[in-house]
Amino acid sequence: MTHHSRLHLAVIDVPGDEHDEALAFWRGATGHELPRIAQHPEFHGGMLPGQEFGLLVQRLDDGEPRVHLDVHTDDLEAEVSRLEGLGATRVRQAPNWRVMRDPAGLPFCVVKDPGINAGNARRWD
Amino acid sequence: MTHHSRLHLAVIDVPGDEHDEALAFWRGATGHELPRIAQHPEFHGGMLPGQEFGLLVQRLDDGEPRVHLDVHTDDLEAEVSRLEGLGATRVRQAPNWRVMRDPAGLPFCVVKDPGINAGNARRWD
Repeated sequence: MTHHSRLHLAVIDVPGDEHDEALAFWRGATGHELPRIAQHPEFHGGMLPGQEFGLLVQRLDDGEPRVHLDVHTDDLEAEVSRLEGLGATRVRQAPNWRVMRDPAGLPFCVVKDPGINAGNARRWD
Repeated sequence: MTHHSRLHLAVIDVPGDEHDEALAFWRGATGHELPRIAQHPEFHGGMLPGQEFGLLVQRLDDGEPRVHLDVHTDDLEAEVSRLEGLGATRVRQAPNWRVMRDPAGLPFCVVKDPGINAGNARRWD
């Protein structure tokens, strides 16, 4: 069965201590409002105008700041299986997203997104 | 004097041991050829079709895999100064790019790009 996916956004993960400073910086750097995401208030951000790609800033409890990439898809299980077949491994799951690692061990997320379709994403048969 | 910039691409940095596997994975994951960049052969990648945003995979000598973001600009010194004014610090420089850190210490790059202009990037007066 056909499904679709694309690299959709980058997430800047920042521990709580430094989150507000980092958010203010990236707002200024991009000129983007990066509003808080109502349903997921640990996230601020949105799509970058004119670029079909988004930026989020995520507040972590602790740890080191880092960036990770999110793949969005219209079929979460199909995409996770497809990426596993390419060498990714599963790390953690939530109802609408999965954390995986690429073959070098780099974490990334796969997210179910009803906005993904044949017109804006890659098709996989 | 006016200049322009935008968040332009994400770079997946992978130590040499795991580079080829990671490159193969991200090629398959994105469906993008991610060709080697002739003038900078430690980089493979390109703009994601339909998305005004790019993905590069960089071969590092060693270290841990990570992702970093690149800001592209038509005026490198003006953009570096602007970002410093927002709280970024300078780390390293090369003729056409700078490594900086955001206020949380996250490294990112600022790159001189003649393709950046008023039509595809944010304007700063």
